[in-house]
Amino acid sequence: MGTGYLLKQIRQQKIQTSDINCYFCRMQILDGKIVSQTVKNTIKEKTALLKSTGKKTPHLAAVLVGSDGASETYVASKVKNCEEIGFISTLIRLDASIEESLLIETIQKLNADDDVDGILVQLPLPGQISEEKIINLIHPNKDVDGFHPVSVGKMVQGLPTFLPATPYGILMMLEYYQVETKGKHAVVIGRSNIVGRPISILLNRNAYPGNCTVTVCHSHTRNLKDICLQADIIVAALGKPGFLTSDMVKEKAVVIDVGISRVPDATKKSGFTLKGDVDFIHVAPKCSFITPVPGGVGLMTIAALMTNTYNACVLKN
Amino acid sequence: MGTGYLLKQIRQQKIQTSDINCYFCRMQILDGKIVSQTVKNTIKEKTALLKSTGKKTPHLAAVLVGSDGASETYVASKVKNCEEIGFISTLIRLDASIEESLLIETIQKLNADDDVDGILVQLPLPGQISEEKIINLIHPNKDVDGFHPVSVGKMVQGLPTFLPATPYGILMMLEYYQVETKGKHAVVIGRSNIVGRPISILLNRNAYPGNCTVTVCHSHTRNLKDICLQADIIVAALGKPGFLTSDMVKEKAVVIDVGISRVPDATKKSGFTLKGDVDFIHVAPKCSFITPVPGGVGLMTIAALMTNTYNACVLKN
Repeated sequence: MGTGYLLKQIRQQKIQTSDINCYFCRMQILDGKIVSQTVKNTIKEKTALLKSTGKKTPHLAAVLVGSDGASETYVASKVKNCEEIGFISTLIRLDASIEESLLIETIQKLNADDDVDGILVQLPLPGQISEEKIINLIHPNKDVDGFHPVSVGKMVQGLPTFLPATPYGILMMLEYYQVETKGKHAVVIGRSNIVGRPISILLNRNAYPGNCTVTVCHSHTRNLKDICLQADIIVAALGKPGFLTSDMVKEKAVVIDVGISRVPDATKKSGFTLKGDVDFIHVAPKCSFITPVPGGVGLMTIAALMTNTYNACVLKN
Repeated sequence: MGTGYLLKQIRQQKIQTSDINCYFCRMQILDGKIVSQTVKNTIKEKTALLKSTGKKTPHLAAVLVGSDGASETYVASKVKNCEEIGFISTLIRLDASIEESLLIETIQKLNADDDVDGILVQLPLPGQISEEKIINLIHPNKDVDGFHPVSVGKMVQGLPTFLPATPYGILMMLEYYQVETKGKHAVVIGRSNIVGRPISILLNRNAYPGNCTVTVCHSHTRNLKDICLQADIIVAALGKPGFLTSDMVKEKAVVIDVGISRVPDATKKSGFTLKGDVDFIHVAPKCSFITPVPGGVGLMTIAALMTNTYNACVLKN
């Protein structure tokens, strides 16, 4: 049975990614469905306990400016997850054409509102609004996205803080599957503020998961293939569908696929299919562990956000 | 003429490090004396201009708790540099046994004092005092050491901020000698909050100096020698005298030595000699550029601190 057959089966969703393990025998899917559900169940139980003991229910406020398709999907999913877990959620929709001052006012109100524990502003924002200004305005104690400079600085210094959701979700996955990290060489492709940079710092810190030797690669990196071939762990976070091919991955590597691009697909009702940065079907057989797309890191991002919101509530009250 | 002879000449200070270039022919000393003096002269001129136009004179307040030998030396040097440049400086000495609350009060007064532009608290602090608490208390606009989480977070995000002095000084050196960095593989040995972590982030950012592929190594790193042999640029910041030996360095590498350890030396009046993390005399002949110890990165740290203090004054007033 060739990989072509498998690919087709996966695409047609006849095979669950969690079933693939037995086909390839020697590798394990890092299954975002299982891990995120486990994390969310824990938060759900803890939230029920808060309520039953008369404590405050966690409350996440999400701000969506405009109506970008992907942003709508993300925000809707966050709100839905809040409901499932038992959080209160508030969705504030603002027109794409609003002035910056109105968004500033909105954030200030949410900062001042004692009932709101976590604030997230869905990015990207329209051009007339400075993302930097808005993010810096969110009170660090409510910064559940972990994008505020104070959160980032504390993360770098190894102090307790809200970790950015996607890197935090990756750590949760590695921990759930007890992937060894100490002394491993991790290669991170991409140096964005949201994923590449923070995951490189977190994998390098003196903790578990962590204590990796970490190499950060980007568009100016030479010999990327040679560097990737040395990696025990590869985090692909550059946003180029299918970029990481099997010739770039050594046997028994751990591959984390952060990419999630919409690729046109006429056979789909939506008109697109989601693709990761990893050429999954060819890379997977070489791996000890790999995350699928969808069903991998994306789901963990939401689980991490929910964890941050829960912690924001408990720390504040 | 063997390296033994050279070593002796350098130790006896009969050869200036800036003269060494002609002996080895193919490598260039990154001379901290020259670069720091150039930077300080610029600041001195700009400060004179501030004064002559009736603007505020930069004012650095240094707090020294206890009387550790190295700390005394560092603080004395900072105060002396302020005088040379034309800054106002205030040295506040506190007893090693003071309560934390007294230091907190001191910082709060300096934060509130409009005449003070930059505050530095010499580290380490005695055990009864939380360094984290004290650093976080310094107002970010006066954080000329760049250790506050806000400063660190902004640095990571590539926003304008006070860069930590030693990494900033290294960037100044690379820039002065126009060392190419884009696309180079930089290996940083050490992951401290003060040097290793920030220099790894700065060398990786999308700017000059920067755009390196960066690998951060530490005590858990395996095959350190193999990794170093791939490096175009090595930053040794682990604090082990003579650790980086010539068999770990490839031809034409750039070597930055951040180490500055006091090694017992009976022939010296002080009883010690300063040694870097690099086995200089054997590594230098392989390098395209190398920093000496002393006379390298250490001097740059002070030049960077003075630059931050000048900027703090100008930004505030």
